[in-house]
Amino acid sequence: MRRGLFLVFEGIDASGKSTQARRIAAMHNAHFAFEPGDSALGADLRHWLLDASLHMEPETEALLMLSDRSHHVRSVIEPNLERGRDVVLDRYFASTLAYQGYGRGVDLVDLRAATEIAIGSCLPDLTILLDIDLDVANERRARDAKDRFESADLDFHARVREGYLELADAYGDQWFIIDGSKSEQDVAAAIDDRVADLAWSHG
Amino acid sequence: MRRGLFLVFEGIDASGKSTQARRIAAMHNAHFAFEPGDSALGADLRHWLLDASLHMEPETEALLMLSDRSHHVRSVIEPNLERGRDVVLDRYFASTLAYQGYGRGVDLVDLRAATEIAIGSCLPDLTILLDIDLDVANERRARDAKDRFESADLDFHARVREGYLELADAYGDQWFIIDGSKSEQDVAAAIDDRVADLAWSHG
Repeated sequence: MRRGLFLVFEGIDASGKSTQARRIAAMHNAHFAFEPGDSALGADLRHWLLDASLHMEPETEALLMLSDRSHHVRSVIEPNLERGRDVVLDRYFASTLAYQGYGRGVDLVDLRAATEIAIGSCLPDLTILLDIDLDVANERRARDAKDRFESADLDFHARVREGYLELADAYGDQWFIIDGSKSEQDVAAAIDDRVADLAWSHG
Repeated sequence: MRRGLFLVFEGIDASGKSTQARRIAAMHNAHFAFEPGDSALGADLRHWLLDASLHMEPETEALLMLSDRSHHVRSVIEPNLERGRDVVLDRYFASTLAYQGYGRGVDLVDLRAATEIAIGSCLPDLTILLDIDLDVANERRARDAKDRFESADLDFHARVREGYLELADAYGDQWFIIDGSKSEQDVAAAIDDRVADLAWSHG
């Protein structure tokens, strides 16, 4: 049986990646998941990661993310791909490199090695990065009645964005950058255009 | 304030390390802990690690162990050492290298890098390895009404033991090997002799 297609969406908050990832997964009847959290263990780890009352260093955050990812790869992603089901993820290994590595300063060489432990050879066929200017992201957050990023957050997210762009550059053809500051319709059209010729299992 | 002393006990099951670690910690009024599990997060991770019904690959096991360790270092071990309290641990980073690396085959280079993320510069002043022959360990387990290791377990534990010995060799003076197959009294005497001249905070 032919292996399923593995597509990942990445980007900072308010880039629109979650909306697009869900849309593409539904359109192609793919297994959709977000990280962290797509298993009983993952849901439990997600609880710890989102518990604002627990002070957690970025190193611990990164290792918990990678624990979740390692279990996710072996219990959900690989089994789906192996039985020919396409998989679409909202965030994967690049999120940890961008947020905990570029953003929070966890050593990138060590983080790449730890990522190897977590994902082995399970690499996406394509990663779509929705790149967005921080000012645009902030306007969207204000419009959606979420808090605007505060200045420390802006600096952090600027580093995350730069990290994503460096990763996209390093991975070349395996990544596709889309200008996420355009309208939702324009972004959707650009994604549809790019993924149309991929070898989807379902339409 | 002078930094506390950091002492770690390592060894395979039935080596007697837990008994000795608790004894030494009590004798010197040190903070004692075993890994994994010495925090709310750690207790939760321990639950997942010990859940026999959950199939978990060695890579996920290793990353969960390292997540627990990272949190343990920053929330318990370092704060104790910094305020001058001695710390005695039953297992630390070498357990993950020995069990998941040497024992289960997780890549050792990647595992060392991930260990760097977890522990940073928080290295023990001394690691005491209770080395024990597998036959002796098996006799003890039978005597204590625990299951004897089955043959696959014996092979695995033989790799773990060899891993520990390689680590002891690599770390030189930072490790001290004791023949754990001797009587509990002889082992205790050898440990007392070795740790007597360490700079304990309390007697």
